[in-house]
Amino acid sequence: MTQTFDIAVIGATGTVGETLVQILEELDFPVGTLHLLASSESAGASVPFRGKNVRVREVDEFDFSKVQLAFFAAGPAVTLSFAPRATAAGCSLIDLSGALPAEQAPQVVPEANAHVLDGLRKPFQVGSPSPCATHLAVVLAPLRGLLGIQRVSVTASLAVSAQGREAVSELARQTAELLNVRPLEPKFFDRQMAFNLLAQVGTPDAQGHTALEKRLVHELRVLLDLPLLKISATCVQAPVFFGDSLSVSLQLAGPVDLGAVNRVLESAPGIELVEEGDYPTAVGDAVGQDVVYVGRVRAGIDDPAELNLWLTSDNVRKGAALNAVQLAQLLIKDLA
Amino acid sequence: MTQTFDIAVIGATGTVGETLVQILEELDFPVGTLHLLASSESAGASVPFRGKNVRVREVDEFDFSKVQLAFFAAGPAVTLSFAPRATAAGCSLIDLSGALPAEQAPQVVPEANAHVLDGLRKPFQVGSPSPCATHLAVVLAPLRGLLGIQRVSVTASLAVSAQGREAVSELARQTAELLNVRPLEPKFFDRQMAFNLLAQVGTPDAQGHTALEKRLVHELRVLLDLPLLKISATCVQAPVFFGDSLSVSLQLAGPVDLGAVNRVLESAPGIELVEEGDYPTAVGDAVGQDVVYVGRVRAGIDDPAELNLWLTSDNVRKGAALNAVQLAQLLIKDLA
Repeated sequence: MTQTFDIAVIGATGTVGETLVQILEELDFPVGTLHLLASSESAGASVPFRGKNVRVREVDEFDFSKVQLAFFAAGPAVTLSFAPRATAAGCSLIDLSGALPAEQAPQVVPEANAHVLDGLRKPFQVGSPSPCATHLAVVLAPLRGLLGIQRVSVTASLAVSAQGREAVSELARQTAELLNVRPLEPKFFDRQMAFNLLAQVGTPDAQGHTALEKRLVHELRVLLDLPLLKISATCVQAPVFFGDSLSVSLQLAGPVDLGAVNRVLESAPGIELVEEGDYPTAVGDAVGQDVVYVGRVRAGIDDPAELNLWLTSDNVRKGAALNAVQLAQLLIKDLA
Repeated sequence: MTQTFDIAVIGATGTVGETLVQILEELDFPVGTLHLLASSESAGASVPFRGKNVRVREVDEFDFSKVQLAFFAAGPAVTLSFAPRATAAGCSLIDLSGALPAEQAPQVVPEANAHVLDGLRKPFQVGSPSPCATHLAVVLAPLRGLLGIQRVSVTASLAVSAQGREAVSELARQTAELLNVRPLEPKFFDRQMAFNLLAQVGTPDAQGHTALEKRLVHELRVLLDLPLLKISATCVQAPVFFGDSLSVSLQLAGPVDLGAVNRVLESAPGIELVEEGDYPTAVGDAVGQDVVYVGRVRAGIDDPAELNLWLTSDNVRKGAALNAVQLAQLLIKDLA
């Protein structure tokens, strides 16, 4: 008989939480009892799991000693409120909110720095990084040894689903209003999102950087174990429902061997390299898939020490929910 | 009495050609007779100018000795076919297609390198660069003296209107099909364009670069008079009707003085700098305007020698038609 684990998912009604439950089922994760939790507004809803509807209950009232592992898939404030209670009850946790400091819950992407898990003590606390950092780490970690990466410049065009269901509905609503030539009144976004690009996601700090951009830079340095890596990050809101697209330019210590880069990308886990001349897109390729798609692999125009890439991946699935479940798969051997 | 000039516009029925005619009227350009020309398929249509509909005629049959200046706003093949006939007839020309080599028709953006015009002989031949290079040159030229620009990394998200009317209709059609949950059959684009980003515009060469990206790099070096400038360029097709958005990261020789950068951008011609914390977008700001909007001016995270900018501008107007008319305004003093 296989050993099972009792699991809690906090934020179970959100886009990431619901996908996480679905992936636990798809990957046949050894779940004993599944406890779905949310804030009081969302409690009472139900989410399907293994052919049954599981009722979502209030996280406030939950006894964390009932589970061995909790996924925190709600916002940073929820993690900060309930993580201490979980660990005090002996429950290990995987946080997707970015709320916990790296010393407390190191950020891990299995394809990049799984070895960090070996140094942890129970109850485990691990961070699942932001989708953009996760995608970049999956692709850059296997190339790290081959390339002397000096600098990364990334423009990430993010799907509205990163901001939850309300943002998805708002893009659909705005688009329909415009196509029907009705007046547009932006609600969720501060202006027209349909057929437009918004240059920032969230409010920038006094230096002009958004929290998402700072999180991306900080997490990518940790995941690649390159604490001094120079990273220029711009996160943009695109009129796309699902799937992030990243335009990446790397500066290297010397000329790039494109043949070797392609061979590494072809064989590395978690990556799908598209054929030369083709390119991957969010819709049609990445959405619903468990890999980061890579295309447009090319050196610079007149600069052999530059490597350019285009990445696209499912922000909710590969960028968040799947990474968290992959972390859980690595942790459970020591959870018993 | 003001002197007038007889003018031809080739490609008068295209998005750029039609806007160009409109701008000639708006700016009260001293047009005597306006000849609108196009290929045989588009001949017969008419375009409004000064309250009248001007009939579009076949370029094949046109006698270029009737005009002092011709705008070539059709594709490169049309320029290559008819530019020699125009100059042989003593007609000066402004080419928007990028077809003519720089030695024959130097690329000029008035805000960046107007002085190049002084060295030309009649009949004048001048190139109006691609919209992306034009936008970048308007913003980077006045900063060139202040910053030791070592490298430019740009991801340009282009509006579908850059590919003409058919692309605009196709984005609208695809979007409507999707919102009505009808099956999508891509026609103009090779896949779903609605709610998606396409990683390349046109077919890449053997090295992976598209013609548009190579044109951007080449033209920007010429416009800034920095022939060895390292430029990483990625041109992406966005589901946006009008207005290009550029995410730009510059590496500088030393720490950036943001106060000085902001002062230069505030006073330079052709630029609208948005307030700190705000950001400009294609829809709502740039479209229909005669300036390049600049926002998100910030140094790097932990790198004071990095400068990041977000530019957005009307690709058809400021990026093409208006620049060509501005060039004509500078040339006419010597055309008489």
